[in-house]
Amino acid sequence: MSDDIVIAVDAMGGDNAPRMVVQGLNRYLARSSGVRFILFGRADDLASQVRKYRRLRDDVDIRHTDVVVSPSDRPSVALRSGRQSSMRHALDAVSAGEAQGALSAGNTGALMAMAKFVLRTLPGIDRPAIASVFPTQRGRTVVLDLGANIECSSENLVQFAVMGEVYARNVLGIAQPTVGLLNVGAEELKGHDALREAATVLRANAKAFDFHGFVEGNDIGRGVVDVIVTDGFTGNVALKTMEGTARLYTHLVRECVKASWLARIGMVFAQPALRKLRRRVDPRYYNGAMLLGLNGVCVKSHGGTDGVGFASAVKVTVDLVADAVNDGIKQDFATFRPSEKTDLRVMAGS
Amino acid sequence: MSDDIVIAVDAMGGDNAPRMVVQGLNRYLARSSGVRFILFGRADDLASQVRKYRRLRDDVDIRHTDVVVSPSDRPSVALRSGRQSSMRHALDAVSAGEAQGALSAGNTGALMAMAKFVLRTLPGIDRPAIASVFPTQRGRTVVLDLGANIECSSENLVQFAVMGEVYARNVLGIAQPTVGLLNVGAEELKGHDALREAATVLRANAKAFDFHGFVEGNDIGRGVVDVIVTDGFTGNVALKTMEGTARLYTHLVRECVKASWLARIGMVFAQPALRKLRRRVDPRYYNGAMLLGLNGVCVKSHGGTDGVGFASAVKVTVDLVADAVNDGIKQDFATFRPSEKTDLRVMAGS
Repeated sequence: MSDDIVIAVDAMGGDNAPRMVVQGLNRYLARSSGVRFILFGRADDLASQVRKYRRLRDDVDIRHTDVVVSPSDRPSVALRSGRQSSMRHALDAVSAGEAQGALSAGNTGALMAMAKFVLRTLPGIDRPAIASVFPTQRGRTVVLDLGANIECSSENLVQFAVMGEVYARNVLGIAQPTVGLLNVGAEELKGHDALREAATVLRANAKAFDFHGFVEGNDIGRGVVDVIVTDGFTGNVALKTMEGTARLYTHLVRECVKASWLARIGMVFAQPALRKLRRRVDPRYYNGAMLLGLNGVCVKSHGGTDGVGFASAVKVTVDLVADAVNDGIKQDFATFRPSEKTDLRVMAGS
Repeated sequence: MSDDIVIAVDAMGGDNAPRMVVQGLNRYLARSSGVRFILFGRADDLASQVRKYRRLRDDVDIRHTDVVVSPSDRPSVALRSGRQSSMRHALDAVSAGEAQGALSAGNTGALMAMAKFVLRTLPGIDRPAIASVFPTQRGRTVVLDLGANIECSSENLVQFAVMGEVYARNVLGIAQPTVGLLNVGAEELKGHDALREAATVLRANAKAFDFHGFVEGNDIGRGVVDVIVTDGFTGNVALKTMEGTARLYTHLVRECVKASWLARIGMVFAQPALRKLRRRVDPRYYNGAMLLGLNGVCVKSHGGTDGVGFASAVKVTVDLVADAVNDGIKQDFATFRPSEKTDLRVMAGS
């Protein structure tokens, strides 16, 4: 029991909380063990939800709070007035060592601000990034930053590259992950200054690092590299453009099938295979964005997800803890940082 | 004959030029009339291609040049040493009034640099933008800039909005097009300074303009607005991310069908309907990126396209001429610019 991983859960964040939160925990525990949860939120609501699932009884602690961060709260407001919120309590539990990871489906900006304040960044990291894993033609790719930092310096991008690489190695189990910088062309001269500088640093550290160079938007889906690094503005637009395109495609297929009785017959035959496909691209199975670079594990679930999606986010949180991603990042920075700093100085002087 | 639209074509640009160029012209003329072409390139090659199609004989003039801009040429190099190139001659023909539009499938950067030099920008426009039309759930959306300007000021973005709006009105035939600025969230406080400033100006000009506010990446596929404005870096990443996602989706569907004999049977039934769908999302039918904001019509075809795709780019070029998009932009700036300038001054002072 003492070797169990403990996850602190903001049980009030998300559109269908706390119901979908508790459903998600139950779903997770149906397949995995060795994990316990501390749930923060309205005790009576939580207790009545938890009571529905026999398997949760022993593995869930409920801690009462009435305060909930609203989806519309500004990060600064949430930080000031949300000290007793379920979100903040979850982070405090990690900071106090009571839990090894925090998970919330609440307000992203508020979670990022609170997590930075409560957990602080890891040594060597100036700013945390939001990272997520995406399906590709070849498997899976980690993309970061997805929206935490609207503008990024070359140092930020280099740090994101290190964090993403450790994640791909420790969690995805890729022995020597390849890293690409998202740009508008593969040529060395393309893009912003920050991108070109970051590329220079990463190229100079090629031994520590399998740096592939610049990649383009279409390389995300192709799975050209294991880790794609970008600023939070571009990453956020790319992520949402992917979602929108996938939805457009689904919409068009549906329309075209609806318009043809022959196609409708065909779909009856294709159904079982398509169901498998749907599972493979279902965003719920990719739910759980990691706030990487913090001195503690913190994961953000999509606010509109259901129990299936929340269970995926639980898995992401547990993986980050079990695979010691933060220790890996710390170790990498111990060896990586000096040469990076040298390079940046060289470049600044040139 | 004298009322014909004349298009100057760089017949040597593109992977399969001049064959696909001539095929494209033939395909275009099979459905449309009232358009003639001046082809620039190696006269013997062109003549032997043109000879294949009876319908081209009367409507195509061939002008010889041996010089071709290479896909790897830097824009500055192409500008200096490409004065006798097929690309440059096509632009010169527009500048001299011999043709009303230029079309090339060659090097994008070189075409943009030459077009700016030869045609100059329209009054009121500081920088031209690359625009293209995309299929959405609701119809079609114009997106600009797709890569001409890596960094954009608020003035640039406002100018792009005006250009896109005129295009949507004149060519797509939308009476009152709605315009959105691509951002990472719909809230007023999100994004870069340039974006927020551009939004303020566009909001203040709401009478001239149906400004919807900020839109996100997924709104491109949803078709929330008729015109989406963004900087060239973000636009380029979004465009290529869309391509990559569409290709990933197609790949996954194909894999899943291949793996199931039942699905393979189903696909036989669904085939005719899916063929129609494929036509609807086929990038060849959306080929032809417009270089908007120039004092003359100039269109860039995808370099890797075929005759079908090149015919679409011909149509885009002809539409820009026939629907007097540049006159529309000039008119709009005559009324729009003053208030914009005022607003920018007010903001700069605040």
